[in-house]
Amino acid sequence: MGRSLAGAFLDAGLRTSVWNRTQGLDRELVARGAASFQSAEEAVAASELTVVCVVNYDAADTILRRGAVRDALRGRTVVNLTADTPVRARDTASWAAEHRVRYLDGAIMTPTTTIGTPSAVLIYSGPEGLYREQQPVLEALGGTQTHLGEEIGRAAAYDIALLDIFWTAMSGYAHALAVARAEGITARQLAPFAKGIGAILPPIFEGTAEEMDSGAFSGEGNALVSAASSMAHIVQASEAHGIDAGVMRAAEGLARRAIGRGHGADGFIRIAELLGRR
Amino acid sequence: MGRSLAGAFLDAGLRTSVWNRTQGLDRELVARGAASFQSAEEAVAASELTVVCVVNYDAADTILRRGAVRDALRGRTVVNLTADTPVRARDTASWAAEHRVRYLDGAIMTPTTTIGTPSAVLIYSGPEGLYREQQPVLEALGGTQTHLGEEIGRAAAYDIALLDIFWTAMSGYAHALAVARAEGITARQLAPFAKGIGAILPPIFEGTAEEMDSGAFSGEGNALVSAASSMAHIVQASEAHGIDAGVMRAAEGLARRAIGRGHGADGFIRIAELLGRR
Repeated sequence: MGRSLAGAFLDAGLRTSVWNRTQGLDRELVARGAASFQSAEEAVAASELTVVCVVNYDAADTILRRGAVRDALRGRTVVNLTADTPVRARDTASWAAEHRVRYLDGAIMTPTTTIGTPSAVLIYSGPEGLYREQQPVLEALGGTQTHLGEEIGRAAAYDIALLDIFWTAMSGYAHALAVARAEGITARQLAPFAKGIGAILPPIFEGTAEEMDSGAFSGEGNALVSAASSMAHIVQASEAHGIDAGVMRAAEGLARRAIGRGHGADGFIRIAELLGRR
Repeated sequence: MGRSLAGAFLDAGLRTSVWNRTQGLDRELVARGAASFQSAEEAVAASELTVVCVVNYDAADTILRRGAVRDALRGRTVVNLTADTPVRARDTASWAAEHRVRYLDGAIMTPTTTIGTPSAVLIYSGPEGLYREQQPVLEALGGTQTHLGEEIGRAAAYDIALLDIFWTAMSGYAHALAVARAEGITARQLAPFAKGIGAILPPIFEGTAEEMDSGAFSGEGNALVSAASSMAHIVQASEAHGIDAGVMRAAEGLARRAIGRGHGADGFIRIAELLGRR
Protein backbone atom coordinates (compact mmCIF):
# COMPACT_ATOMS: atom_id res chain seq x y z
CA MET A 1 0.00 0.00 0.00
CA GLY A 2 2.88 2.38 0.83
CA ARG A 3 4.21 1.92 -2.68
CA SER A 4 0.81 2.70 -4.22
CA LEU A 5 0.42 5.86 -2.11
CA ALA A 6 3.92 7.13 -3.00
CA GLY A 7 3.29 6.22 -6.66
CA ALA A 8 0.08 8.28 -6.69
CA PHE A 9 1.92 11.32 -5.25
CA LEU A 10 4.62 10.93 -7.92
CA ASP A 11 1.98 10.60 -10.67
CA ALA A 12 0.46 13.86 -9.44
CA GLY A 13 3.84 15.56 -9.89
CA LEU A 14 4.41 16.08 -6.18
CA ARG A 15 7.92 16.04 -4.70
CA THR A 16 7.93 12.72 -2.82
CA SER A 17 10.34 11.30 -0.23
CA VAL A 18 10.14 7.64 0.69
CA TRP A 19 11.36 5.46 3.51
CA ASN A 20 10.55 1.81 4.18
CA ARG A 21 11.54 -0.45 7.08
CA THR A 22 12.86 -2.90 4.50
CA GLN A 23 15.57 -1.28 2.39
CA GLY A 24 15.58 -1.65 -1.39
CA LEU A 25 11.80 -1.96 -1.78
CA ASP A 26 11.69 1.62 -3.10
CA ARG A 27 13.86 1.07 -6.20
CA GLU A 28 10.96 1.40 -8.63
CA LEU A 29 9.72 4.57 -6.86
CA VAL A 30 13.21 6.09 -7.02
CA ALA A 31 13.30 5.34 -10.75
CA ARG A 32 10.03 7.30 -11.02
CA GLY A 33 11.55 10.31 -9.22
CA ALA A 34 11.14 9.67 -5.50
CA ALA A 35 13.89 10.71 -3.08
CA SER A 36 14.89 7.72 -0.94
CA PHE A 37 16.26 8.15 2.59
CA GLN A 38 18.27 5.88 4.88
CA SER A 39 16.28 6.83 7.96
CA ALA A 40 12.70 7.81 8.80
CA GLU A 41 13.86 11.05 10.45
CA GLU A 42 15.62 12.16 7.25
CA ALA A 43 12.53 11.39 5.15
CA VAL A 44 10.34 13.28 7.64
CA ALA A 45 12.72 16.27 7.68
CA ALA A 46 12.55 16.50 3.87
CA SER A 47 8.74 17.04 3.74
CA GLU A 48 5.98 19.16 5.27
CA LEU A 49 3.56 16.22 5.19
CA THR A 50 4.33 12.67 6.31
CA VAL A 51 1.92 9.92 5.24
CA VAL A 52 2.24 6.70 7.24
CA CYS A 53 0.72 3.36 6.24
CA VAL A 54 1.96 0.25 8.02
CA VAL A 55 0.36 -2.95 9.35
CA ASN A 56 -0.97 -1.50 12.67
CA TYR A 57 -0.35 1.21 15.28
CA ASP A 58 2.26 -0.86 17.11
CA ALA A 59 4.32 -0.68 13.92
CA ALA A 60 3.46 3.00 13.37
CA ASP A 61 4.42 3.89 16.97
CA THR A 62 7.78 2.12 16.64
CA ILE A 63 8.58 4.46 13.74
CA LEU A 64 6.94 7.75 14.79
CA ARG A 65 7.69 7.77 18.50
CA ARG A 66 11.44 7.18 18.22
CA GLY A 67 13.21 10.33 19.57
CA ALA A 68 14.84 11.42 16.31
CA VAL A 69 11.64 11.01 14.27
CA ARG A 70 9.50 12.68 16.95
CA ASP A 71 11.88 15.68 16.97
CA ALA A 72 11.87 15.89 13.17
CA LEU A 73 8.04 15.85 13.16
CA ARG A 74 7.66 18.87 15.46
CA GLY A 75 5.53 21.48 13.66
CA ARG A 76 4.96 19.18 10.70
CA THR A 77 1.87 17.17 9.71
CA VAL A 78 1.30 13.41 9.94
CA VAL A 79 -1.57 11.71 8.10
CA ASN A 80 -1.76 8.20 9.53
CA LEU A 81 -3.51 5.84 7.09
CA THR A 82 -2.61 2.78 9.15
CA ALA A 83 -5.65 0.66 10.08
CA ASP A 84 -6.33 -0.04 13.75
CA THR A 85 -8.90 0.74 16.44
CA PRO A 86 -10.37 4.16 17.39
CA VAL A 87 -8.64 3.88 20.80
CA ARG A 88 -5.24 3.70 19.12
CA ALA A 89 -6.04 6.67 16.87
CA ARG A 90 -7.00 8.73 19.95
CA ASP A 91 -3.85 7.68 21.77
CA THR A 92 -1.68 8.70 18.81
CA ALA A 93 -3.46 12.06 18.60
CA SER A 94 -2.69 12.68 22.30
CA TRP A 95 0.95 11.82 21.71
CA ALA A 96 1.01 14.11 18.66
CA ALA A 97 -0.52 17.02 20.61
CA GLU A 98 2.03 16.55 23.37
CA HIS A 99 4.89 16.78 20.88
CA ARG A 100 3.37 19.54 18.71
CA VAL A 101 2.88 17.25 15.73
CA ARG A 102 -0.11 18.21 13.58
CA TYR A 103 -2.14 15.04 13.23
CA LEU A 104 -4.87 13.63 10.96
CA ASP A 105 -6.07 10.06 11.12
CA GLY A 106 -7.41 8.21 8.11
CA ALA A 107 -8.28 4.87 6.57
CA ILE A 108 -8.16 3.44 3.07
CA MET A 109 -11.32 1.51 2.20
CA THR A 110 -10.27 0.12 -1.21
CA PRO A 111 -7.43 -2.14 -2.48
CA THR A 112 -3.94 -0.92 -3.43
CA THR A 113 -4.83 -1.09 -7.13
CA THR A 114 -7.45 1.67 -6.71
CA ILE A 115 -5.06 4.25 -5.21
CA GLY A 116 -4.69 7.26 -7.50
CA THR A 117 -7.78 6.20 -9.49
CA PRO A 118 -11.44 7.31 -9.27
CA SER A 119 -12.26 4.02 -7.47
CA ALA A 120 -10.22 4.86 -4.37
CA VAL A 121 -12.18 5.55 -1.18
CA LEU A 122 -10.39 7.24 1.72
CA ILE A 123 -11.81 8.60 4.96
CA TYR A 124 -10.25 11.05 7.40
CA SER A 125 -10.85 12.53 10.81
CA GLY A 126 -9.20 15.24 12.88
CA PRO A 127 -8.99 19.05 12.76
CA GLU A 128 -11.08 20.32 9.85
CA GLY A 129 -8.68 23.22 9.11
CA LEU A 130 -5.71 20.86 8.89
CA TYR A 131 -7.66 18.56 6.56
CA ARG A 132 -8.61 21.47 4.26
CA GLU A 133 -4.96 22.55 4.21
CA GLN A 134 -3.70 19.10 3.22
CA GLN A 135 -6.60 18.29 0.88
CA PRO A 136 -4.85 19.48 -2.35
CA VAL A 137 -2.02 17.02 -1.67
CA LEU A 138 -4.25 14.17 -0.45
CA GLU A 139 -6.37 14.52 -3.60
CA ALA A 140 -3.50 12.87 -5.48
CA LEU A 141 -4.59 9.60 -3.86
CA GLY A 142 -7.71 9.87 -6.03
CA GLY A 143 -11.32 8.80 -5.81
CA THR A 144 -13.76 9.69 -3.07
CA GLN A 145 -12.27 11.31 -0.01
CA THR A 146 -14.39 12.26 2.99
CA HIS A 147 -13.59 14.15 6.17
CA LEU A 148 -15.86 12.48 8.75
CA GLY A 149 -15.43 14.91 11.61
CA GLU A 150 -13.05 16.45 14.08
CA GLU A 151 -13.17 13.54 16.54
CA ILE A 152 -9.88 11.82 15.72
CA GLY A 153 -11.18 8.26 16.25
CA ARG A 154 -14.00 8.68 13.74
CA ALA A 155 -12.18 7.39 10.65
CA ALA A 156 -10.97 4.31 12.54
CA ALA A 157 -14.51 3.71 13.85
CA TYR A 158 -15.95 3.78 10.32
CA ASP A 159 -13.08 1.59 9.15
CA ILE A 160 -13.75 -1.00 11.87
CA ALA A 161 -17.51 -1.04 11.16
CA LEU A 162 -16.97 -1.42 7.40
CA LEU A 163 -14.30 -4.10 7.77
CA ASP A 164 -16.67 -5.85 10.17
CA ILE A 165 -19.25 -6.08 7.37
CA PHE A 166 -16.64 -7.08 4.81
CA TRP A 167 -14.82 -9.83 6.74
CA THR A 168 -17.99 -11.29 8.21
CA ALA A 169 -19.53 -11.47 4.72
CA MET A 170 -16.34 -13.02 3.31
CA SER A 171 -16.39 -15.61 6.12
CA GLY A 172 -19.96 -16.44 5.16
CA TYR A 173 -18.96 -16.79 1.52
CA ALA A 174 -16.00 -19.03 2.40
CA HIS A 175 -18.27 -21.22 4.51
CA ALA A 176 -20.90 -21.35 1.76
CA LEU A 177 -18.21 -22.49 -0.72
CA ALA A 178 -17.19 -25.28 1.65
CA VAL A 179 -20.79 -26.47 2.10
CA ALA A 180 -21.44 -26.19 -1.64
CA ARG A 181 -18.33 -28.23 -2.45
CA ALA A 182 -19.41 -30.95 0.01
CA GLU A 183 -22.72 -31.04 -1.90
CA GLY A 184 -20.94 -31.38 -5.25
CA ILE A 185 -21.44 -27.76 -6.29
CA THR A 186 -18.39 -25.91 -7.61
CA ALA A 187 -17.62 -22.31 -6.70
CA ARG A 188 -18.11 -21.32 -10.35
CA GLN A 189 -21.57 -22.91 -10.36
CA LEU A 190 -22.51 -21.06 -7.18
CA ALA A 191 -20.94 -17.74 -8.28
CA PRO A 192 -23.81 -16.29 -10.37
CA PHE A 193 -26.25 -16.91 -7.51
CA ALA A 194 -23.75 -15.68 -4.89
CA LYS A 195 -23.40 -12.47 -6.90
CA GLY A 196 -27.19 -12.15 -6.86
CA ILE A 197 -27.17 -12.37 -3.06
CA GLY A 198 -24.34 -9.80 -2.94
CA ALA A 199 -26.38 -7.46 -5.12
CA ILE A 200 -29.41 -7.45 -2.80
CA LEU A 201 -27.31 -6.50 0.24
CA PRO A 202 -26.79 -2.75 -0.44
CA PRO A 203 -30.53 -1.88 -0.63
CA ILE A 204 -31.19 -4.05 2.44
CA PHE A 205 -28.36 -2.27 4.30
CA GLU A 206 -30.00 1.03 3.45
CA GLY A 207 -33.52 -0.06 4.42
CA THR A 208 -32.49 -1.58 7.74
CA ALA A 209 -30.37 1.48 8.61
CA GLU A 210 -33.66 3.38 8.91
CA GLU A 211 -34.97 0.70 11.29
CA MET A 212 -31.82 0.86 13.42
CA ASP A 213 -31.95 4.64 13.86
CA SER A 214 -35.71 4.80 14.40
CA GLY A 215 -35.86 1.80 16.75
CA ALA A 216 -38.84 0.38 14.78
CA PHE A 217 -37.75 -3.11 13.76
CA SER A 218 -40.38 -4.22 11.27
CA GLY A 219 -40.25 -7.98 10.82
CA GLU A 220 -42.85 -7.84 8.06
CA GLY A 221 -42.15 -10.70 5.67
CA ASN A 222 -38.83 -11.45 7.33
CA ALA A 223 -39.16 -12.02 11.05
CA LEU A 224 -36.30 -13.05 13.36
CA VAL A 225 -37.96 -16.44 13.92
CA SER A 226 -37.69 -17.17 10.17
CA ALA A 227 -34.06 -16.05 10.14
CA ALA A 228 -33.26 -18.32 13.10
CA SER A 229 -34.96 -21.22 11.32
CA SER A 230 -32.80 -20.64 8.20
CA MET A 231 -29.70 -20.35 10.35
CA ALA A 232 -30.46 -23.65 12.08
CA HIS A 233 -30.81 -25.34 8.65
CA ILE A 234 -27.40 -23.97 7.64
CA VAL A 235 -25.79 -25.26 10.84
CA GLN A 236 -27.38 -28.71 10.30
CA ALA A 237 -26.41 -28.96 6.64
CA SER A 238 -22.86 -27.85 7.43
CA GLU A 239 -22.31 -30.16 10.37
CA ALA A 240 -23.84 -33.08 8.45
CA HIS A 241 -20.72 -32.77 6.26
CA GLY A 242 -18.39 -32.35 9.26
CA ILE A 243 -17.90 -28.68 8.41
CA ASP A 244 -17.35 -26.31 11.36
CA ALA A 245 -20.39 -24.03 11.66
CA GLY A 246 -19.00 -21.89 14.51
CA VAL A 247 -19.58 -18.56 12.77
CA MET A 248 -23.22 -19.36 11.97
CA ARG A 249 -23.73 -20.91 15.44
CA ALA A 250 -22.59 -17.63 16.99
CA ALA A 251 -24.85 -15.63 14.66
CA GLU A 252 -27.82 -17.93 15.35
CA GLY A 253 -27.13 -17.47 19.07
CA LEU A 254 -27.65 -13.72 18.69
CA ALA A 255 -30.95 -14.30 16.89
CA ARG A 256 -32.10 -16.79 19.56
CA ARG A 257 -31.16 -14.31 22.30
CA ALA A 258 -33.33 -11.63 20.66
CA ILE A 259 -36.19 -14.14 20.26
CA GLY A 260 -35.80 -15.15 23.91
CA ARG A 261 -36.28 -11.52 24.88
CA GLY A 262 -39.60 -11.44 23.06
CA HIS A 263 -38.47 -9.96 19.74
CA GLY A 264 -39.21 -12.97 17.50
CA ALA A 265 -41.62 -11.05 15.28
CA ASP A 266 -39.15 -8.18 14.80
CA GLY A 267 -36.79 -7.71 11.86
CA PHE A 268 -33.29 -9.17 11.99
CA ILE A 269 -31.57 -5.84 12.72
CA ARG A 270 -33.09 -5.94 16.22
CA ILE A 271 -29.97 -7.99 17.13
CA ALA A 272 -27.83 -4.87 16.53
CA GLU A 273 -29.85 -2.95 19.08
CA LEU A 274 -29.46 -5.78 21.63
CA LEU A 275 -25.71 -6.14 20.92
CA GLY A 276 -25.17 -2.46 21.58
CA ARG A 277 -27.28 -2.30 24.74
CA ARG A 278 -25.40 -1.69 27.99
CA MET B 1 -45.21 -16.55 0.85
CA GLY B 2 -48.04 -19.03 0.16
CA ARG B 3 -50.37 -16.12 -0.48
CA SER B 4 -47.90 -14.54 -2.94
CA LEU B 5 -47.49 -17.83 -4.82
CA ALA B 6 -51.23 -18.41 -5.11
CA GLY B 7 -51.71 -14.76 -6.11
CA ALA B 8 -49.18 -15.13 -8.94
CA PHE B 9 -50.99 -18.23 -10.25
CA LEU B 10 -54.30 -16.33 -10.16
CA ASP B 11 -52.72 -13.33 -11.94
CA ALA B 12 -51.55 -15.71 -14.67
CA GLY B 13 -55.15 -16.84 -15.15
CA LEU B 14 -54.56 -20.35 -13.80
CA ARG B 15 -57.27 -22.25 -11.95
CA THR B 16 -55.98 -22.16 -8.37
CA SER B 17 -57.07 -24.09 -5.27
CA VAL B 18 -55.85 -22.98 -1.86
CA TRP B 19 -55.60 -24.47 1.58
CA ASN B 20 -53.89 -23.05 4.66
CA ARG B 21 -53.38 -24.55 8.11
CA THR B 22 -54.98 -21.41 9.52
CA GLN B 23 -58.50 -20.98 8.16
CA GLY B 24 -59.70 -17.61 6.88
CA LEU B 25 -56.27 -16.40 5.69
CA ASP B 26 -57.33 -17.06 2.08
CA ARG B 27 -60.26 -14.61 1.98
CA GLU B 28 -58.47 -12.16 -0.32
CA LEU B 29 -57.37 -15.00 -2.64
CA VAL B 30 -60.94 -16.32 -2.82
CA ALA B 31 -62.12 -12.81 -3.75
CA ARG B 32 -59.58 -12.94 -6.60
CA GLY B 33 -60.99 -16.26 -7.85
CA ALA B 34 -59.24 -19.00 -5.86
CA ALA B 35 -61.17 -22.10 -4.79
CA SER B 36 -60.78 -22.57 -1.04
CA PHE B 37 -60.94 -26.03 0.57
CA GLN B 38 -61.58 -27.19 4.12
CA SER B 39 -58.90 -29.90 3.98
CA ALA B 40 -55.53 -30.38 2.31
CA GLU B 41 -56.70 -33.62 0.66
CA GLU B 42 -59.60 -31.84 -1.04
CA ALA B 43 -57.29 -29.08 -2.33
CA VAL B 44 -54.83 -31.71 -3.58
CA ALA B 45 -57.59 -33.71 -5.29
CA ALA B 46 -58.76 -30.58 -7.16
CA SER B 47 -55.42 -30.00 -8.95
CA GLU B 48 -52.79 -31.83 -11.01
CA LEU B 49 -49.99 -29.80 -9.38
CA THR B 50 -49.62 -29.11 -5.66
CA VAL B 51 -47.21 -26.35 -4.61
CA VAL B 52 -46.19 -26.47 -0.95
CA CYS B 53 -44.48 -23.66 0.93
CA VAL B 54 -44.40 -23.83 4.71
CA VAL B 55 -41.85 -23.03 7.43
CA ASN B 56 -39.80 -26.27 7.17
CA TYR B 57 -40.04 -29.96 6.21
CA ASP B 58 -41.41 -30.97 9.61
CA ALA B 59 -44.41 -28.78 8.79
CA ALA B 60 -44.53 -30.01 5.17
CA ASP B 61 -44.40 -33.67 6.28
CA THR B 62 -47.23 -33.14 8.75
CA ILE B 63 -49.41 -32.04 5.84
CA LEU B 64 -48.22 -34.26 2.95
CA ARG B 65 -47.68 -37.56 4.76
CA ARG B 66 -51.10 -37.75 6.39
CA GLY B 67 -52.90 -40.79 4.94
CA ALA B 68 -55.72 -38.94 3.17
CA VAL B 69 -53.36 -36.39 1.57
CA ARG B 70 -50.83 -39.05 0.59
CA ASP B 71 -53.60 -41.04 -1.11
CA ALA B 72 -54.91 -37.96 -2.92
CA LEU B 73 -51.38 -37.20 -4.18
CA ARG B 74 -50.86 -40.59 -5.86
CA GLY B 75 -50.02 -39.97 -9.54
CA ARG B 76 -50.02 -36.20 -9.05
CA THR B 77 -47.11 -33.76 -8.82
CA VAL B 78 -45.76 -31.94 -5.77
CA VAL B 79 -43.39 -28.97 -6.08
CA ASN B 80 -42.04 -28.36 -2.60
CA LEU B 81 -40.79 -24.78 -2.22
CA THR B 82 -40.32 -25.15 1.52
CA ALA B 83 -36.78 -24.26 2.67
CA ASP B 84 -34.79 -26.86 4.61
CA THR B 85 -31.66 -29.02 4.22
CA PRO B 86 -30.68 -31.25 1.26
CA VAL B 87 -31.08 -34.31 3.52
CA ARG B 88 -34.74 -33.48 4.11
CA ALA B 89 -35.34 -32.93 0.38
CA ARG B 90 -33.85 -36.38 -0.36
CA ASP B 91 -35.93 -37.98 2.37
CA THR B 92 -39.11 -36.43 0.97
CA ALA B 93 -38.21 -37.61 -2.55
CA SER B 94 -37.82 -41.19 -1.24
CA TRP B 95 -41.18 -40.97 0.46
CA ALA B 96 -42.73 -39.57 -2.74
CA ALA B 97 -41.25 -42.37 -4.87
CA GLU B 98 -42.58 -44.96 -2.46
CA HIS B 99 -46.08 -43.52 -2.75
CA ARG B 100 -45.94 -42.81 -6.50
CA VAL B 101 -46.04 -39.06 -6.00
CA ARG B 102 -44.19 -37.15 -8.72
CA TYR B 103 -41.80 -34.85 -6.88
CA LEU B 104 -39.78 -31.70 -7.57
CA ASP B 105 -37.90 -29.79 -4.93
CA GLY B 106 -37.30 -26.06 -5.10
CA ALA B 107 -36.35 -22.93 -3.23
CA ILE B 108 -37.35 -19.28 -3.47
CA MET B 109 -34.36 -16.94 -3.29
CA THR B 110 -36.19 -13.59 -3.20
CA PRO B 111 -38.78 -11.93 -0.90
CA THR B 112 -42.54 -12.45 -1.16
CA THR B 113 -42.94 -9.08 -2.89
CA THR B 114 -40.94 -10.30 -5.92
CA ILE B 115 -43.14 -13.34 -6.64
CA GLY B 116 -44.84 -13.00 -10.03
CA THR B 117 -42.48 -10.18 -11.01
CA PRO B 118 -39.25 -10.20 -13.09
CA SER B 119 -37.23 -9.89 -9.83
CA ALA B 120 -38.23 -13.33 -8.53
CA VAL B 121 -35.48 -15.98 -8.41
CA LEU B 122 -36.52 -19.62 -8.00
CA ILE B 123 -34.40 -22.76 -8.23
CA TYR B 124 -35.49 -26.35 -8.73
CA SER B 125 -34.08 -29.85 -8.73
CA GLY B 126 -35.46 -33.28 -9.58
CA PRO B 127 -36.46 -35.14 -12.75
CA GLU B 128 -35.77 -32.92 -15.78
CA GLY B 129 -38.80 -34.23 -17.71
CA LEU B 130 -41.13 -33.44 -14.83
CA TYR B 131 -39.65 -29.94 -14.54
CA ARG B 132 -40.14 -29.28 -18.29
CA GLU B 133 -43.73 -30.50 -17.99
CA GLN B 134 -44.52 -28.16 -15.08
CA GLN B 135 -42.48 -25.23 -16.38
CA PRO B 136 -45.40 -23.46 -18.15
CA VAL B 137 -47.30 -23.35 -14.84
CA LEU B 138 -44.27 -22.49 -12.69
CA GLU B 139 -43.43 -19.61 -15.01
CA ALA B 140 -46.39 -17.77 -13.48
CA LEU B 141 -44.19 -17.27 -10.41
CA GLY B 142 -42.10 -14.97 -12.61
CA GLY B 143 -38.48 -13.89 -12.85
CA THR B 144 -35.50 -16.17 -13.24
CA GLN B 145 -36.17 -19.85 -12.78
CA THR B 146 -33.40 -22.43 -13.02
CA HIS B 147 -33.45 -26.21 -12.99
CA LEU B 148 -30.16 -27.08 -11.26
CA GLY B 149 -30.09 -30.79 -11.95
CA GLU B 150 -31.78 -34.12 -11.37
CA GLU B 151 -30.23 -34.70 -7.93
CA ILE B 152 -33.19 -33.80 -5.72
CA GLY B 153 -31.10 -32.20 -2.94
CA ARG B 154 -29.44 -29.74 -5.32
CA ALA B 155 -31.90 -26.85 -4.93
CA ALA B 156 -31.77 -27.13 -1.13
CA ALA B 157 -27.94 -27.23 -1.25
CA TYR B 158 -27.81 -24.00 -3.29
CA ASP B 159 -30.41 -22.49 -1.00
CA ILE B 160 -28.37 -23.34 2.11
CA ALA B 161 -25.15 -21.97 0.59
CA LEU B 162 -26.83 -18.74 -0.50
CA LEU B 163 -28.63 -18.22 2.80
CA ASP B 164 -25.29 -18.88 4.50
CA ILE B 165 -23.81 -15.90 2.63
CA PHE B 166 -26.87 -13.77 3.27
CA TRP B 167 -27.36 -14.37 7.00
CA THR B 168 -23.66 -14.23 7.80
CA ALA B 169 -23.38 -10.92 5.95
CA MET B 170 -26.47 -9.57 7.73
CA SER B 171 -24.98 -10.63 11.08
CA GLY B 172 -21.84 -8.68 10.18
CA TYR B 173 -23.92 -5.66 9.26
CA ALA B 174 -25.91 -5.85 12.51
CA HIS B 175 -22.66 -6.08 14.49
CA ALA B 176 -21.16 -3.18 12.56
CA LEU B 177 -24.23 -1.06 13.35
CA ALA B 178 -23.83 -1.85 17.05
CA VAL B 179 -20.12 -0.91 17.04
CA ALA B 180 -20.84 2.22 14.99
CA ARG B 181 -23.57 3.33 17.42
CA ALA B 182 -21.21 2.83 20.38
CA GLU B 183 -18.78 5.13 18.53
CA GLY B 184 -21.47 7.76 18.00
CA ILE B 185 -22.08 6.92 14.33
CA THR B 186 -25.71 6.51 13.25
CA ALA B 187 -26.82 3.77 10.88
CA ARG B 188 -27.78 6.45 8.32
CA GLN B 189 -24.29 7.94 8.50
CA LEU B 190 -22.72 4.52 7.97
CA ALA B 191 -25.19 3.45 5.24
CA PRO B 192 -23.53 5.05 2.16
CA PHE B 193 -20.21 3.43 3.08
CA ALA B 194 -21.88 0.13 3.99
CA LYS B 195 -23.52 0.13 0.57
CA GLY B 196 -20.05 0.67 -0.95
CA ILE B 197 -18.77 -2.41 0.86
CA GLY B 198 -21.82 -4.36 -0.31
CA ALA B 199 -21.16 -3.30 -3.90
CA ILE B 200 -17.59 -4.66 -3.93
CA LEU B 201 -18.69 -8.10 -2.74
CA PRO B 202 -20.14 -9.52 -6.02
CA PRO B 203 -16.92 -9.07 -8.07
CA ILE B 204 -14.86 -10.42 -5.15
CA PHE B 205 -17.20 -13.43 -4.92
CA GLU B 206 -16.63 -14.06 -8.63
CA GLY B 207 -12.84 -13.64 -8.46
CA THR B 208 -12.36 -15.86 -5.45
CA ALA B 209 -14.64 -18.56 -6.93
CA GLU B 210 -11.90 -19.11 -9.51
CA GLU B 211 -9.37 -19.51 -6.68
CA MET B 212 -11.57 -22.00 -4.86
CA ASP B 213 -12.06 -24.25 -7.89
CA SER B 214 -8.45 -24.04 -9.05
CA GLY B 215 -6.93 -24.48 -5.58
CA ALA B 216 -4.56 -21.54 -6.22
CA PHE B 217 -5.20 -19.12 -3.35
CA SER B 218 -3.42 -15.94 -4.37
CA GLY B 219 -2.93 -13.71 -1.36
CA GLU B 220 -1.48 -10.92 -3.50
CA GLY B 221 -2.35 -7.62 -1.87
CA ASN B 222 -4.71 -9.31 0.55
CA ALA B 223 -3.06 -12.08 2.53
CA LEU B 224 -4.72 -14.06 5.32
CA VAL B 225 -2.33 -12.50 7.86
CA SER B 226 -3.70 -9.03 6.97
CA ALA B 227 -7.28 -10.30 7.23
CA ALA B 228 -6.57 -11.80 10.66
CA SER B 229 -5.02 -8.50 11.79
CA SER B 230 -8.17 -6.60 10.69
CA MET B 231 -10.37 -9.16 12.40
CA ALA B 232 -8.42 -8.80 15.66
CA HIS B 233 -8.93 -5.00 15.51
CA ILE B 234 -12.67 -5.53 15.06
CA VAL B 235 -12.82 -7.87 18.05
CA GLN B 236 -10.86 -5.38 20.20
CA ALA B 237 -12.93 -2.37 19.16
CA SER B 238 -16.16 -4.30 19.75
CA GLU B 239 -15.23 -5.72 23.14
CA ALA B 240 -13.87 -2.32 24.27
CA HIS B 241 -17.54 -1.26 24.13
CA GLY B 242 -18.76 -4.44 25.82
CA ILE B 243 -20.24 -5.68 22.54
CA ASP B 244 -20.22 -9.45 21.99
CA ALA B 245 -17.78 -10.26 19.17
CA GLY B 246 -18.52 -14.00 19.06
CA VAL B 247 -19.24 -14.10 15.32
CA MET B 248 -15.99 -12.30 14.43
CA ARG B 249 -14.05 -14.33 17.03
CA ALA B 250 -15.23 -17.54 15.32
CA ALA B 251 -14.31 -16.14 11.88
CA GLU B 252 -10.91 -14.97 13.11
CA GLY B 253 -10.37 -18.47 14.54
CA LEU B 254 -10.77 -19.93 11.04
CA ALA B 255 -8.22 -17.47 9.67
CA ARG B 256 -5.78 -18.23 12.51
CA ARG B 257 -6.19 -21.97 11.89
CA ALA B 258 -5.28 -21.52 8.22
CA ILE B 259 -2.29 -19.34 9.20
CA GLY B 260 -1.21 -21.99 11.72
CA ARG B 261 -1.18 -24.53 8.93
CA GLY B 262 1.25 -22.37 6.96
CA HIS B 263 -1.20 -20.56 4.69
CA GLY B 264 -0.66 -17.02 6.04
CA ALA B 265 0.44 -15.64 2.67
CA ASP B 266 -2.58 -17.18 0.88
CA GLY B 267 -5.82 -15.40 0.04
CA PHE B 268 -8.71 -15.47 2.49
CA ILE B 269 -10.72 -18.10 0.59
CA ARG B 270 -8.12 -20.68 1.65
CA ILE B 271 -10.28 -21.05 4.78
CA ALA B 272 -13.08 -22.53 2.64
CA GLU B 273 -10.74 -25.23 1.42
CA LEU B 274 -9.69 -26.03 5.01
CA LEU B 275 -13.30 -26.00 6.27
CA GLY B 276 -14.30 -28.52 3.63
CA ARG B 277 -11.36 -30.82 4.14
CA ARG B 278 -12.13 -34.23 5.65
